Amino acid sequence: MEDLEGTKRIVIEHVQPQINCGKYPAKRVVGEELVVTADVFGDGHDEVKAQLVYRHSKKKTWSQVPMQFLGNDRWQAAFTPDTMGRYEYTVQGWIDHFYTWQKGLKKKFEANQDVTVELQIGAQQLEAAAETAKPGQQKRLRKWAGQLRSNTSAADAVAWATGPEVSELMHACCERQNVTTYAKTLQLDVERQKALFSTWYEFFPRSAAQEAGQHGTFKDCARLLPRIAEMGFDTIYLPPIHPIGRAFRKGKNNSPTSDPGEPGSPWAIGAAEGGHKAILPELGTLEDFREFVHQAREHGIEVALDFAIQCSPDHPYVKEHPAWFKWRPDGTVQYAENPPKKYQDVLPVNFETEDWQNLWQEMKSILMHWIEQGVFIFRVDNPHTKAFGFWEWVIAEVHKSYPQVIFLAEAFTRPRVMEQLAKIGFTQSYTYYTWRNTAEELKQYMTELTQTEMREYFRPNFWPNTPDILPYALQEGGEAAHITRVVMAATLSSNYGLYGPVYEFGINTPVPGKEEYYNSEKYEAMHWDWGRLTKTREVITLINKIRKVNPALQTTWNIAFCDTDNPQLFSYVKWSSDFKNLMLMVVNLDPHNTQAGWVKVPLWQLRMPQDQQYQVHDLLSEHKYTWTSEWNYVELRPHEMPVHVFRIETTTPGMGHDNLDDTWLPNDHHTSNE
Amino acid sequence: MEDLEGTKRIVIEHVQPQINCGKYPAKRVVGEELVVTADVFGDGHDEVKAQLVYRHSKKKTWSQVPMQFLGNDRWQAAFTPDTMGRYEYTVQGWIDHFYTWQKGLKKKFEANQDVTVELQIGAQQLEAAAETAKPGQQKRLRKWAGQLRSNTSAADAVAWATGPEVSELMHACCERQNVTTYAKTLQLDVERQKALFSTWYEFFPRSAAQEAGQHGTFKDCARLLPRIAEMGFDTIYLPPIHPIGRAFRKGKNNSPTSDPGEPGSPWAIGAAEGGHKAILPELGTLEDFREFVHQAREHGIEVALDFAIQCSPDHPYVKEHPAWFKWRPDGTVQYAENPPKKYQDVLPVNFETEDWQNLWQEMKSILMHWIEQGVFIFRVDNPHTKAFGFWEWVIAEVHKSYPQVIFLAEAFTRPRVMEQLAKIGFTQSYTYYTWRNTAEELKQYMTELTQTEMREYFRPNFWPNTPDILPYALQEGGEAAHITRVVMAATLSSNYGLYGPVYEFGINTPVPGKEEYYNSEKYEAMHWDWGRLTKTREVITLINKIRKVNPALQTTWNIAFCDTDNPQLFSYVKWSSDFKNLMLMVVNLDPHNTQAGWVKVPLWQLRMPQDQQYQVHDLLSEHKYTWTSEWNYVELRPHEMPVHVFRIETTTPGMGHDNLDDTWLPNDHHTSNE
Repeated sequence: MEDLEGTKRIVIEHVQPQINCGKYPAKRVVGEELVVTADVFGDGHDEVKAQLVYRHSKKKTWSQVPMQFLGNDRWQAAFTPDTMGRYEYTVQGWIDHFYTWQKGLKKKFEANQDVTVELQIGAQQLEAAAETAKPGQQKRLRKWAGQLRSNTSAADAVAWATGPEVSELMHACCERQNVTTYAKTLQLDVERQKALFSTWYEFFPRSAAQEAGQHGTFKDCARLLPRIAEMGFDTIYLPPIHPIGRAFRKGKNNSPTSDPGEPGSPWAIGAAEGGHKAILPELGTLEDFREFVHQAREHGIEVALDFAIQCSPDHPYVKEHPAWFKWRPDGTVQYAENPPKKYQDVLPVNFETEDWQNLWQEMKSILMHWIEQGVFIFRVDNPHTKAFGFWEWVIAEVHKSYPQVIFLAEAFTRPRVMEQLAKIGFTQSYTYYTWRNTAEELKQYMTELTQTEMREYFRPNFWPNTPDILPYALQEGGEAAHITRVVMAATLSSNYGLYGPVYEFGINTPVPGKEEYYNSEKYEAMHWDWGRLTKTREVITLINKIRKVNPALQTTWNIAFCDTDNPQLFSYVKWSSDFKNLMLMVVNLDPHNTQAGWVKVPLWQLRMPQDQQYQVHDLLSEHKYTWTSEWNYVELRPHEMPVHVFRIETTTPGMGHDNLDDTWLPNDHHTSNE
Repeated sequence: MEDLEGTKRIVIEHVQPQINCGKYPAKRVVGEELVVTADVFGDGHDEVKAQLVYRHSKKKTWSQVPMQFLGNDRWQAAFTPDTMGRYEYTVQGWIDHFYTWQKGLKKKFEANQDVTVELQIGAQQLEAAAETAKPGQQKRLRKWAGQLRSNTSAADAVAWATGPEVSELMHACCERQNVTTYAKTLQLDVERQKALFSTWYEFFPRSAAQEAGQHGTFKDCARLLPRIAEMGFDTIYLPPIHPIGRAFRKGKNNSPTSDPGEPGSPWAIGAAEGGHKAILPELGTLEDFREFVHQAREHGIEVALDFAIQCSPDHPYVKEHPAWFKWRPDGTVQYAENPPKKYQDVLPVNFETEDWQNLWQEMKSILMHWIEQGVFIFRVDNPHTKAFGFWEWVIAEVHKSYPQVIFLAEAFTRPRVMEQLAKIGFTQSYTYYTWRNTAEELKQYMTELTQTEMREYFRPNFWPNTPDILPYALQEGGEAAHITRVVMAATLSSNYGLYGPVYEFGINTPVPGKEEYYNSEKYEAMHWDWGRLTKTREVITLINKIRKVNPALQTTWNIAFCDTDNPQLFSYVKWSSDFKNLMLMVVNLDPHNTQAGWVKVPLWQLRMPQDQQYQVHDLLSEHKYTWTSEWNYVELRPHEMPVHVFRIETTTPGMGHDNLDDTWLPNDHHTSNE
């Protein structure tokens, strides 16, 4: 019995967020509120109080936030972290005997019962509190106790004893007894704001050359920075920049053999020139790369590198660390395969090796090497084919010194696997958005991401395309689909990215029957006309500008869907947490035909009055409409502009009124018409 | 890094059942299956295996059950406990490299690839397994390895290597490497079958006298045993049998004062004659009580006592243990109150007392005292007004020596509180059934009890009435409501009970405007005509017999609801776990009017064929109907019989064919008619 705390009567349960019973942290960014809820209750009818306590793990003292009662024994409080790193939080509850007494006293007095003895009980409580109170409080407590014991009228005594002054005094100094603290201290990982709001542009540096037939260099890449910045991207993601293996080098269109001079796939990492810490000589030197990273930063752009744990047969690791690979009876290293498919230019690393500690340390050293060159974002290639334990360890190791490092998980695989990668530390995750096309699919998927436990730890990054994926929607839908898919990505998810050049130039020739690009840039260098201005590029530029000035689009979590009477019209609203910035998107999902219908604006959800005019301002077309009710008519012509991106501008004080600088709005743009 | 297990690649998550992250055990009875599910997955595409392991906590060795793959990384296995007490269970997973190899080999061979090296890899695996295998297995493994290395045809080698003999051999002796065991060992409490299937009759022993005006005794109670047994009850629950306080004794109809000779409320426990371990002298001696318990057992009935932790002002504890009570400034003990209501005949015990250890030990000694008299069931009065920690401790303490003891929680309070009481050890719980009247309410509530996590730890016990509660439905619905409410209680929940005499005699005069009995037996002794046979009594007798021979009604968990086209018709099916016993209930919820309509039998759910005749046999009326499709017409006249209790008797082998002894069916009964 000695280990029991017999006099504690409060139960605390079901504290949320809580990922896998507290095994993994929830996630927020600096300045993003964490709402904590819990069931807190005691036996009997005494009055319960609860508070949230939290601290940054590097601080000694805990902050306290009183919890609000939501009903049905559920309580809630929130705090907003202001520092990167790990926070801890938990919940406490106790019985407030004085408040219990106050409520009882009031009821008894109102029922005309004699409260003489009750007032003495209250005086006892005040005196007991005085025992441990500070001198000034002590005096006031004893004064009040004396007044309750004096012969004032019961009415006066009840009024004083239940009034705000006594209540506040007792709240401040009455020692809480038998406080129950929730058994677990839960964890919160706080990252920088870019973890939640980022805009990615992927391109192959080898295709950045000015002249056709030349191999692009980092200097060529630097020349592209103004255009990429002008388009509104804040992150450039480069496929691997390392030496490319020669053994089994892939040729054009994934040919198992290559002709001399073909560059091979950059994911076949490692050659005589070096491995994961080296740079492909054709791209330039390490100094060139550092200079490119520096110049990008001057354009407000960070460079993200690809982290692909796999080796070409020529990678130095194969000789230096044979224990990291599986060897076949014929003396060769086991190549990657998904029977009957073989990927002989790529050797997987064997995470079951007995030498795993050296392997892990070396992998960490690769990340640290590039961090030292100024790279703080890694897009991780196929993390789901490497051991989960490794990722959990290496991300934590990196974050110990560099909490600002962002890891994006490239995993288009089974749901549990993708969730696990997010739980063990990946900052952002690729998603199934790429294949969600109908309004119902999109709504269901967004609901899963934002309304389930995933919201607490899984930050989506929406990619309409990648070098690996040319979805059927883009193959079939042409320019209209390219516009709707990127606008939806950019407005549904605050993190989104594009495999850029092919997207803006509308290249969508597939390998027949497959969701892959024909003449894929993975296997050859391209030459792009970087100066070419397409409507898609114009919309990308616009939507990225719109994202920058509308806080509602800088978070993924505040979303609600609008009823429409036409299933080809997909519509949703987003809002800033202060409800000052309200956005309404309406998308024609049919890339071929004009679609029209009625859309219901969920005024209640946006905290807008039901009976008042409001203006919707299409930030793409600059058209403005005055609406008066929930249901409104919309018509979208795919070959003009298949999407509305409305800002709702009400005349209600405090609603939809952000101090927006509209000077960036272009004068010349494609418009919709209704 | 030393504390990491770097080569383990399997993740195990979300093992269920799991109550509060494993803090509390799940519950089953002896012979009741526990189905365990888990997410088990690894990185990459290697083949995963999983198993459930479990043991009784008093055993050393673990049993293993291979888990079946359900899809989407979810796995399932089950076991059936055969012993009371605590079980432990958890889940293990590993990568099956040999099976991975087999699948790859087959695919490569089918794609006409050269498998020479693959076959050597397989031979290596067989040889590695031989290293640690038993001698006989060793020989066979080496033989197979040799065959793979020999120059047999690839076709033959692939056939052998992927055939059942090699597969079974490797399954049996290949040492599993890098096995991940789920981080938590979960708990299961296994109780006796009565925890799940019990039929309770509550009466006040003081009203058992043969002569009006006499105080009933245990000898009088014993005379009632044949009738109660004949009605099919297996549990008699007696309100407190202890001396009743004299101070502030309640009079008839809860009067705050009593006249001399009035017996008071039995819940005002304790007087000069003794406290919780004593017996009210008017009822008899301890020896009389033991004799009554003994005779009850001979009728197949167990006696349940009330355990009410509260004291009359005359209870010996007040003087012996003043620290267990709260004292008021006027020198009196704080009585129970819910301001402005006062219960001056009852003193609550202060669970915040510093002397809590002695208090808890004394409370435990009360239970042990009555257990030693042969009482193994306790109905606990208002457990939600005593500390949760106490219940958790005392139930565990009792179960250490007497795992067969059943605790029924009388808590009609907030959902979280009722759930918590079940989690911390109460065997059964009173429920909100008493106030669920419409088909929709009943369906929702049954869904909550049987389809949510509550199913794992909360065993409902349905009471249509109690001495405290005469629900409006019984006040207004008369005999028809008494019949439907008891038949639904008895067929929805495998545990049910009645506050018997008033129920069978149809007494339903309320305190005006309240859900309370007028002239409540709580405050006076009654004299009942125990020989009186009512239609309600007859139905109770019949339904209890039906429960005894139909396993589908001996569990609460197998239930599905039937669509009807009349909301006044509430219909549901139940089935035994082997689907041999199928029951269909149809209830007319309108106690005043005949209701008719169509009811859809969920054939699919009952695993019945869609296109075959079946017979429904009303076990109340003995009428039989032959039905041929899902939808069937039903008509119920409330003043004849407002409910059908059908057994579905199909002609499909193995379906609805239990070896039932129908000889008990009465010849004379009320019938419905359609």
